[in-house]
Amino acid sequence: MKKEKSQQGLSVNKEQNFSEWYNQIVQKAELADYSDVKGFMVIRPNAYSIWEAIQTYFDKRIKSLGVRNAYFPLLIPESFFKKEADHARGFVPEVAWIANKETDKGEKSERLAIRPTSETIIYDSYSKWIRSWRDLPLRINQWSNVVRWETKATRLFLRTREFLWQEGHCVYESKEECDKETLQFLKEYQKLCEDVLAIPVLTGRKTDKEKFSGALYTLSIEGIMQDGKALQMGTSHNLGQGFARSFDINFLDKDGKKNTPWQNSWGVSTRLIGALAMVHGDDRGLILPPKVAYNKVVIIPLLFKGKEAKVLAKAKEIAKKLTDFNPILDDSEATPGWKFNEHELKGIPIRIEIGPKDIEKKQVTLVRRDTGKKTEVKESFVQKEVESLLDDIQSTLFKKAKKDFEEKISEVTDFSQLKKAISGQKVALGFFCGNSSCEENIKEKADGAKTINMPFEESKKSGKCVVCGKLVKSLVYIGKSY
Amino acid sequence: MKKEKSQQGLSVNKEQNFSEWYNQIVQKAELADYSDVKGFMVIRPNAYSIWEAIQTYFDKRIKSLGVRNAYFPLLIPESFFKKEADHARGFVPEVAWIANKETDKGEKSERLAIRPTSETIIYDSYSKWIRSWRDLPLRINQWSNVVRWETKATRLFLRTREFLWQEGHCVYESKEECDKETLQFLKEYQKLCEDVLAIPVLTGRKTDKEKFSGALYTLSIEGIMQDGKALQMGTSHNLGQGFARSFDINFLDKDGKKNTPWQNSWGVSTRLIGALAMVHGDDRGLILPPKVAYNKVVIIPLLFKGKEAKVLAKAKEIAKKLTDFNPILDDSEATPGWKFNEHELKGIPIRIEIGPKDIEKKQVTLVRRDTGKKTEVKESFVQKEVESLLDDIQSTLFKKAKKDFEEKISEVTDFSQLKKAISGQKVALGFFCGNSSCEENIKEKADGAKTINMPFEESKKSGKCVVCGKLVKSLVYIGKSY
Repeated sequence: MKKEKSQQGLSVNKEQNFSEWYNQIVQKAELADYSDVKGFMVIRPNAYSIWEAIQTYFDKRIKSLGVRNAYFPLLIPESFFKKEADHARGFVPEVAWIANKETDKGEKSERLAIRPTSETIIYDSYSKWIRSWRDLPLRINQWSNVVRWETKATRLFLRTREFLWQEGHCVYESKEECDKETLQFLKEYQKLCEDVLAIPVLTGRKTDKEKFSGALYTLSIEGIMQDGKALQMGTSHNLGQGFARSFDINFLDKDGKKNTPWQNSWGVSTRLIGALAMVHGDDRGLILPPKVAYNKVVIIPLLFKGKEAKVLAKAKEIAKKLTDFNPILDDSEATPGWKFNEHELKGIPIRIEIGPKDIEKKQVTLVRRDTGKKTEVKESFVQKEVESLLDDIQSTLFKKAKKDFEEKISEVTDFSQLKKAISGQKVALGFFCGNSSCEENIKEKADGAKTINMPFEESKKSGKCVVCGKLVKSLVYIGKSY
Repeated sequence: MKKEKSQQGLSVNKEQNFSEWYNQIVQKAELADYSDVKGFMVIRPNAYSIWEAIQTYFDKRIKSLGVRNAYFPLLIPESFFKKEADHARGFVPEVAWIANKETDKGEKSERLAIRPTSETIIYDSYSKWIRSWRDLPLRINQWSNVVRWETKATRLFLRTREFLWQEGHCVYESKEECDKETLQFLKEYQKLCEDVLAIPVLTGRKTDKEKFSGALYTLSIEGIMQDGKALQMGTSHNLGQGFARSFDINFLDKDGKKNTPWQNSWGVSTRLIGALAMVHGDDRGLILPPKVAYNKVVIIPLLFKGKEAKVLAKAKEIAKKLTDFNPILDDSEATPGWKFNEHELKGIPIRIEIGPKDIEKKQVTLVRRDTGKKTEVKESFVQKEVESLLDDIQSTLFKKAKKDFEEKISEVTDFSQLKKAISGQKVALGFFCGNSSCEENIKEKADGAKTINMPFEESKKSGKCVVCGKLVKSLVYIGKSY
C-alpha cells in the first residue's frame, strides 16, 4: 500500500498549521481516509487495531464490573424519539431517516431513524425486561456504529457522520447507586486514557447548558490537544428518572411497592484515535503508545552489498525472538533512510537496525520513536531490552503529555485574564457561579471559547466568578474546543 | 430478568412443532427478542456472548493468516451498486435507502443505501490503495451490521432485516492464489463449526444458480438441523476479476506490466447462533457447547432449613475455586427444582448441587446438561473434574451431532428415491449433471427442496444424474433449507 504519487513525510509542521498537520498524519500514517460519501470515513487497519486495543482493555474492565454486552436494532421508530422531550430536541435535527420503509407502531405506520444514540430503543426493551428489584442493577453495553448528520466540516475521527463507539446503559433502584456508578464509569474512562492511551484528562461535570439532551447531569473527561484546544473524550450521564417515566420502566421493590428506577448511560468513541494523534504526534508523524501499537517493533536490515544474505538471516532470527511484539521485518528494496521515515511516520514505538557491524559485535541497535535515542544491545538481551524499553516509552509519553497538559492550564481571576489565556492557546481555570447568563457571556465574548467542565473538587476558599464577580467556591475550565 | 407472566420451560416439544420449539428456545433462554421494528431483533447478552466467543476464536485465526480488520462506511452511493451488474441485480431489491440525504458523486447528487454487503464500497477504496504487486495480497476483514429488507416472515437469527457478521475481502495477483485462499477460508469456517460450535457441516460448491451475485463461484458450509432442513452457515466466494474491472482495481506486476487482480470475499453471521440452538437443543431447552458458554457452570445450594448458612458458605467457596469457568451461584429464593429447569433451559453445561449431605461427605454433585448424568466428586477435585467434564461435553456433543448428521443424509439414485428422502426429512446425496434445467426440475418437483452444494470430491465411478439420467461423476446434496 504505497503512495507513489504523494511525497513521503509531512509537508507542514504542527506549529505552522496544526489542522493540516493532523490531517496529513491521519492520512499518511494510513489511519483513515475520506470516503466518497460526504462526511463518512474509512477506518484503515492501522487505526482499527488501535480501536481493538481500546476495546480489549475496556471490555475486560466493564465485564469485571458486571456489565454484559448486547446488540439493539440500528433503526428506531420516530415515536420512540419523541417520548423524552429534551432528548428529541437534542437529537432529531441530526437524524438520518429511512426512505419508503416504515414500521407499524400503534395505529399507524411511522418513519424509521438510523440510531444517533440508542437510549430510546434500548429502554423500550428494558420496560419489558424489568419487573422486580431482583432484575436490578441491570448493566448492558453495546459496541456499535451510530450516524449523526453533522453539517460542519468533516474532520477524520473528530467529526464524521458515522463513528464507532460503545454505549453503556444501566438501571438502578436508587439515585445513590446511580450517582456512584455514573462516576465509576467516568473514572474507568480516565484510567483508559491515562494507562492505555497515555493521555491526561480534565474530569468534571458539564454545565447544564452543555449536558446531554435528556440527562440530569453529565460528567466528562476532556483532553487538551497540542494546539491548546480541549477535546471531549468521554461522557457519563446520570439520566435521572426521565427516560424511565417516558418508557414506562418500573419495578416492584422488596416491599412489593411499584417504583421508578434510575438510569445512566456512558460512551467513548473512535474519536479517541484522533486524540492520540493530536496529543503525542510530532513533525515526523504519529507516535503510538506501546499499549495500543499493533506492531510494537520494526526491524530494518542494513543490506550492505555482498552481506545481504547474512544480514537478512540475522534479521529473521531476531524477528522470531520478538514474536510477542508482532514485529514488522521490512526487507523491501527501499533505502534504509526511506524506511526510517516511513515507520516513524506510522509511529511504531521501536526501530531495530541490524547491519554487518552489529552482527560482528553480536548486537543490534534499538531506536525509540518518542525521543529518537539509540541504544546498542547484545543480541542475547534483545527481548528483555525491548520489553523494558516499551514500558519506558509508555510511561515517558504519559509524563511528557502530563507536563504539556499542565503547562496548557492557566489559572485566571477575571475576564481579561481569561481572554489572555484563550488567545495564548491555553485552557483557563477560574471561579464560576454556574449562572447561564455568565455562560452566555463567555461564549459571546471570549473569542470562541466555552465552558469545558467543572472540576469535582471545589476550591477551599471562595473567589470571584470570572464573569460576574460573585463570590463562589465552584470552578470551571474554559477553552476553545473541538 | 424474570418472566413472571410466562410459564417456565417450553410448551411444545421439537417433534410436535420444530419451528415453535425453536422460537420458544430463543426467547425463553433469553437469546433474542423481536423488536418493535418489524423484522429486526434484539440480541440479548446470552446470545451476544456466544457471538463474542465466535469472534474471539475466529479473529485470532484469520489474523494468523495475515488478515487485518478495518471499518468501511455504512452508507453506499447508488452508482457503486450499479457498477457490477450481477451484484446489483442480486442486492438492489432488498436495499433500504436513506431519505433526503444524498451525496455528491460525479456530476449529480445520488441516493445512499444502507449496506447489505460491502464489496462495492470496499473495492472503491481498494482501487485507491492498490498500485503494485508489493501491495498484494491484501487481506482485510470487517465486523459489522448489515441490512437486507427481507419480505418473508422473520425468524430470529435466521432471517431478520439486520444481522451482525464478518466480511473478509482479499485481493491477489493470480487466480491460483485466489482459489487456494477461497478454499482456505471455507476450511476455517468448517473448523469453527466443528471445533467450537460442535456442528458438522457439508462442504462444497454452490451451483451456478445458487452462487453469490457477482461471484465466479461460491463455496459453502451447510449444517443439517434436527428437522432435516439444511442451513447455510458460511460462504466463501471467488469473485474472479469482475469487481476489479468494474472498480478499476489494477496493479503493476514485477515486470512493470499493468494487471487485473483476483478477489475473494467470505462471511459468517449471527445466524450461527440459530444453528447452535437447532442442532443441539432438546425438549428441556438450549444445550451450549462449553467453548461458547459464557457461564460454564451453575452452582445451586440446596438450602435445607437450619443449614442455610453452612451450605451457602460452602457454595461460595466452591464458586471461588471455579472462577475460571465463570460460575453462576444461584442463591435466589426459588425452589431447587425451578432453578434446575431454568438453567437447563439456558443450556449451561454443568450444574453443581451442594447440600448438607454433600458437605458431610466433603463432596459435590455434578450434573451434565447434555446427558443428565450425575457424578459425585470430592470437593478437592472439583476444578479438575469440571475441566475434564467440559472437554467431554464438548466432544460428546460433536459426536452426537455427527451421528444425527450422518443419519440425515440419504444416498439416492433416482428421482423417486430423492422425493422419498425429502419427504422423510432427509438430505439427499445423488449424482447430478449440473445442468440448470435439471436444477429447475428439482425445485419444481421435489416438494420444496433445492440443491444445497456439490461436494468437492467427485465419485470415482460414474452414476446417473438423479434428474436426467446422464452419466456423470459429480454429486450434489439436495434438501429443504432455511
